[in-house]
Amino acid sequence: MYVVNALRRAAQTSPDRIASVHQGRSWTWAQVQDRVARLAGVLRAHGVEPGDRVALLGWNSDRYLESVLAAAWAGAVIVPLNTRLAPPEIAYQVGHSGAKLFIHDIGFSDVVRHVADGHPALSLISIGGADDAADYDALIAAASPVDDAGPQHGDLLGIFYTGGTTGLPKGVMTTHANMAHQVALHMLDLGWTRDTVYLHVLPMFHLGGLLCAYCLVSLAGSNRYMERFDADEFLDRLASEGISAAALGPVVIGWLLESPRIGELDLSTLRSIAYGTSPITEPVLRRAMQRWPGAGFTQIYGQTEITGTISVLRPDEHVLDGEDAVRLRSAGRASWGIDARVVDDDGREVARHAIGEIVARSPGVMAGYWQDPEQTAATLRNGWLHTGDVGYMDEAGFIYVVDRKKDMIVTGGENVFSSEVERAIASMPGVSQVAVIGVPHEVWGEAVHAVVVPAPGVPLDEQAVIAHCRGLIAGFKCPKSVEIRRESLPLSGVNKIRKHTLREPFWKGRSRGVN
Amino acid sequence: MYVVNALRRAAQTSPDRIASVHQGRSWTWAQVQDRVARLAGVLRAHGVEPGDRVALLGWNSDRYLESVLAAAWAGAVIVPLNTRLAPPEIAYQVGHSGAKLFIHDIGFSDVVRHVADGHPALSLISIGGADDAADYDALIAAASPVDDAGPQHGDLLGIFYTGGTTGLPKGVMTTHANMAHQVALHMLDLGWTRDTVYLHVLPMFHLGGLLCAYCLVSLAGSNRYMERFDADEFLDRLASEGISAAALGPVVIGWLLESPRIGELDLSTLRSIAYGTSPITEPVLRRAMQRWPGAGFTQIYGQTEITGTISVLRPDEHVLDGEDAVRLRSAGRASWGIDARVVDDDGREVARHAIGEIVARSPGVMAGYWQDPEQTAATLRNGWLHTGDVGYMDEAGFIYVVDRKKDMIVTGGENVFSSEVERAIASMPGVSQVAVIGVPHEVWGEAVHAVVVPAPGVPLDEQAVIAHCRGLIAGFKCPKSVEIRRESLPLSGVNKIRKHTLREPFWKGRSRGVN
Repeated sequence: MYVVNALRRAAQTSPDRIASVHQGRSWTWAQVQDRVARLAGVLRAHGVEPGDRVALLGWNSDRYLESVLAAAWAGAVIVPLNTRLAPPEIAYQVGHSGAKLFIHDIGFSDVVRHVADGHPALSLISIGGADDAADYDALIAAASPVDDAGPQHGDLLGIFYTGGTTGLPKGVMTTHANMAHQVALHMLDLGWTRDTVYLHVLPMFHLGGLLCAYCLVSLAGSNRYMERFDADEFLDRLASEGISAAALGPVVIGWLLESPRIGELDLSTLRSIAYGTSPITEPVLRRAMQRWPGAGFTQIYGQTEITGTISVLRPDEHVLDGEDAVRLRSAGRASWGIDARVVDDDGREVARHAIGEIVARSPGVMAGYWQDPEQTAATLRNGWLHTGDVGYMDEAGFIYVVDRKKDMIVTGGENVFSSEVERAIASMPGVSQVAVIGVPHEVWGEAVHAVVVPAPGVPLDEQAVIAHCRGLIAGFKCPKSVEIRRESLPLSGVNKIRKHTLREPFWKGRSRGVN
Repeated sequence: MYVVNALRRAAQTSPDRIASVHQGRSWTWAQVQDRVARLAGVLRAHGVEPGDRVALLGWNSDRYLESVLAAAWAGAVIVPLNTRLAPPEIAYQVGHSGAKLFIHDIGFSDVVRHVADGHPALSLISIGGADDAADYDALIAAASPVDDAGPQHGDLLGIFYTGGTTGLPKGVMTTHANMAHQVALHMLDLGWTRDTVYLHVLPMFHLGGLLCAYCLVSLAGSNRYMERFDADEFLDRLASEGISAAALGPVVIGWLLESPRIGELDLSTLRSIAYGTSPITEPVLRRAMQRWPGAGFTQIYGQTEITGTISVLRPDEHVLDGEDAVRLRSAGRASWGIDARVVDDDGREVARHAIGEIVARSPGVMAGYWQDPEQTAATLRNGWLHTGDVGYMDEAGFIYVVDRKKDMIVTGGENVFSSEVERAIASMPGVSQVAVIGVPHEVWGEAVHAVVVPAPGVPLDEQAVIAHCRGLIAGFKCPKSVEIRRESLPLSGVNKIRKHTLREPFWKGRSRGVN
């Protein structure tokens, strides 16, 4: 479903239903369509034409939704930025995408001004924050609505930056056709309806969060927003606002289970919990299912490069006992219209239970990486997305992820490419060698761990390394722990650091090499 | 969902579930995938390469499904032919599409041979009939499976000929992307699952019938087939085979209600009846809903040109009483991701309740008419499919079709839509069929003329019909003349009344068909 069509349909068939409620503001679908058409007019007035890029930096909110919809309405390409990025990273993504306009929450004004200094042609729009509403609403009230640009199949909807193996982020190019397909299967997988009240906990700057928002537009359902996660607030709002669906990371589910309030409240309105972004531990999942027996736990395994879902573990496949309980450790089975396989290095499908790389094809597979034909060719081969995840498939098609081909760490649901962290640490004076690996972590699944060899005679300590990183990369990318070594790191025959050897002591005795 | 991906997924996730049962044959999804890959090998051996056209002429069957899937697997373009066509029409469509191969039921051998005489390069494959199975199964057993061609977005899936009633047929070009989108929304609209057992009554050579088949592949559900409709056989099979879903034309629903057997059988397994293809009369619908209260009646309004659905009247919108009961006369509301509007001659949206042409845009809109840029340009304007249907929309987005654009009568300067008059006459007890046409008139330019077929044994005369109308519609809309016929009205291959034939004697010898 093209998102512009979906918005038109929501306003046509459900004009008076509530689309968004946030911070005392409430909008019907007819109002949202009108506001989006006006905001698109503002974009036009800033010179934004179809195909132009619009960067976005903000917390989950009704305005963030309006902004992404207005960009699509105007035919522009959104570039949603992770709110946790360090200023140099934001500057890089704005510059690399060639954004013409930067829409941002007022709270980010300092960093936005810094970025704008380096890009004098960049226009800015503030969508306000909790304490600032006037400008944005005045802007919309003053604007004339424009007609939508009527997107075609291959038109870009967005560029989503993810970490890169080279140390620089890659921009995933997502088309309207990609999103149209994946929204449809998300709707089929989750069974949401137009009566669904969805609370945005998952950040809307992530493709997964945005995908959920687009489902709500397609369904003409109702959006609620959390800017920053807080377990008690979440539980209170579930009970008081009749929230019926949410998408949560495993870490957040863990936090909720720790809250003393969870036993006090009536949470029975919650009928659908989608979880994913990183594997959940079985004990947490078991406790969550026992706590919320009617919550329809649905695991989604996917990637930004396929516009969301590859496979799904459905509610009725969440079996706690008997021989099928082993499936709780799986990533489920290929979703509708997804052809997922496990292949060897030559791309040939391997036997059931044999280990190989997980690949997939679907109308959701990205158009490529923005201005990066080399990485595109390495990732998309003969129409197949190579996920870099390693695993196996059983006789019934359940997929088990056991390792990662890419040098990447998944911590708290965020992907961190080791090379990005290594690049930051290597820029520190006195560093001779560095290797960054993922190590198991109770809360975050994996944690970023750095092994650093200083140049002879240079004093270096853990805190100095972490402090150096903080100025360059997002907090979640900075090492949680640093080991300072005085001897050289083990090298392979082609002079690459043997990360396998470095990882071994941390992962010994575990059945999987990823969490 | 690309159909090839969907078949791969069905075989991967549901290898042992029953895909097809027909005439004592039964195939699992793993078997169907294997047979399709082999049949695709047969196509290759006949020189069929990606993009080549493959004509199909056959009754609903497991083999028909395998044939359409094998063509997609091989990257070929199917050209499904209506089994009711006359030999010259079949020859025209085979020739016009440039088909390289002709797959046909054995029962059509005579006509196929006739066509082949005119196209010496055409290859033939018989998929057998009720009494002939050997050749087809031997062919599959002897063939080697080939890998699928991996369809891309814009690749053609099929050419569907329509519009035989007005001049030469036009070939609707349907892409894999078109079908992928419309299959998804059909699944969302109908709520079928992998436990669905679907009986193919709607011919699979129609896009609507094929769309249902593709849904079943996507769901890994189960297919049953009826070659020719028979009310008693249908009712028996519903009860004995546990059929849970079917798509039926209104005429068929009417026949079923007439069957004395309908009161004797337990038909409670039937949970989903999709109906459409032509408007249903309200009394028939009311009787059907009362007879089958749990059957989830879902009206689909659409066109081949949009790969199926434009709008849907959902089960919970089938309200028999109160002010919402008027919606039974509507075609429902835009389906997921469909932007449907009522526009004036300049393409501008008209106000709610104002009459105009129904237009729609969606990823399902066809690539155009095969080798007919003129008709394509007339039908697809600025990305909008112009349906040629005339109607209005109410405040809640329900669409009411009142006529076809060319089926309008101008009498004394007033526009009269035939269907309004037909609806009035059809509500008269004892009316079996009715067609209203414009005929030349000395004074009024055109006059409203009705051709009415009473039910057997019912006495009806001209004055009674006109008197009945007077109570329901404006005087200028009432027929000026009524012809009572005792034989059935002429029907086109798609069960539409051939108004052209009825109009002919009145307009013969005139240079224009309107006054």
